[in-house]
Amino acid sequence: MAIKVFGAPGSTATLRVRAALAEKDLDYEFILVDLATKEHKKPEFVSRNPFGQVPAFEDGDLKMFESRAITEYIANAYADQGNDLITKDAKKAAIQSVWMQVEAQKYEPATSMLFIELCLKPMWGMPVDEAVVEENEKKLEEVLDIYESRLSESKYLGGDSFTLADLHHLPNLKYLMGTKVKRLFDARPRVSAWASEILARPAWVKASGGAA
Amino acid sequence: MAIKVFGAPGSTATLRVRAALAEKDLDYEFILVDLATKEHKKPEFVSRNPFGQVPAFEDGDLKMFESRAITEYIANAYADQGNDLITKDAKKAAIQSVWMQVEAQKYEPATSMLFIELCLKPMWGMPVDEAVVEENEKKLEEVLDIYESRLSESKYLGGDSFTLADLHHLPNLKYLMGTKVKRLFDARPRVSAWASEILARPAWVKASGGAA
Repeated sequence: MAIKVFGAPGSTATLRVRAALAEKDLDYEFILVDLATKEHKKPEFVSRNPFGQVPAFEDGDLKMFESRAITEYIANAYADQGNDLITKDAKKAAIQSVWMQVEAQKYEPATSMLFIELCLKPMWGMPVDEAVVEENEKKLEEVLDIYESRLSESKYLGGDSFTLADLHHLPNLKYLMGTKVKRLFDARPRVSAWASEILARPAWVKASGGAA
Repeated sequence: MAIKVFGAPGSTATLRVRAALAEKDLDYEFILVDLATKEHKKPEFVSRNPFGQVPAFEDGDLKMFESRAITEYIANAYADQGNDLITKDAKKAAIQSVWMQVEAQKYEPATSMLFIELCLKPMWGMPVDEAVVEENEKKLEEVLDIYESRLSESKYLGGDSFTLADLHHLPNLKYLMGTKVKRLFDARPRVSAWASEILARPAWVKASGGAA
């Protein structure tokens, strides 16, 4: 099999890549990287991702890391297969790109801090830092207010169809919907409808093992 | 004139866009957004960038924000003009994209915190938080170690030629070279040579007003 994903089942960045592969209906080999034994910090894995973080990716002789670079490669290299994840029209692609950057620069920092505090720390038996939760809920609320407005002009964040601009949100969204942060999504009708819809996509259900 | 940049002279994100326009030898109208009078938080500007942050961008009927989305648009829409900023070969473009994500996800968070502490706070007469400086210097050192290794395999971060993967580093790099953080670059010979070379590019010197 040509495509290989080296990752961990619960990792949000690994899930981002698996979601794109599922949308493209691509088969791949999943190679488990055992975080418990710090396999991601050992030379074999560090040669695939110098930061020692999952996932790493391989397609024939191409080796990559950074989940958002991988999903972009998948969307472009397999453009004619499965569901379109990028807009072909140049100006529409530019707008999609704006919202992909908003996800990476604004949504990701706030939601990954909330994911650590509200999902990982309880699992690790560590105390939650409520000040960090509050600060990042505020940042997320600003983002969601802007999404609520954006979703009044277009059905999806990147434009009229589902693209990477939406897909990149899914892993953190899935986990936060199981925490008190869900109320921030629920309080915004368009955001709430968008979140429910993208979480219900068959490809996402398949990639994330059904839990949403 | 078709292209307009709404920004502030000292803003790193504004400089990122101006650097791309200079590499492409494109003329544009620069519209000053007066941060001192909070013009960036007023409705006219917020309609261009809902986050109320400079820059915003216009090319004919296309309106954008998020500096990295804007530079990608410029690189693609004006591919045949000025210096190439993207790699055309699909697999090489995938590798360029990896290092663009490293800049956005790893270099930017550390260097923007250092920029705030060591450049903005002194200018504002605010005390520097040395714990924040130390934490982010450590994060930056990890990134620069990986760059030192990467630059032993390829002349530039994204591949054999200068691309957006290098260009996106320039604004924070320029400012940090005027602080004690410079020593972290100087301590790594390939990183140091790369930094000197990209800071000396005529397009960057033009875009940044000569100071480097």
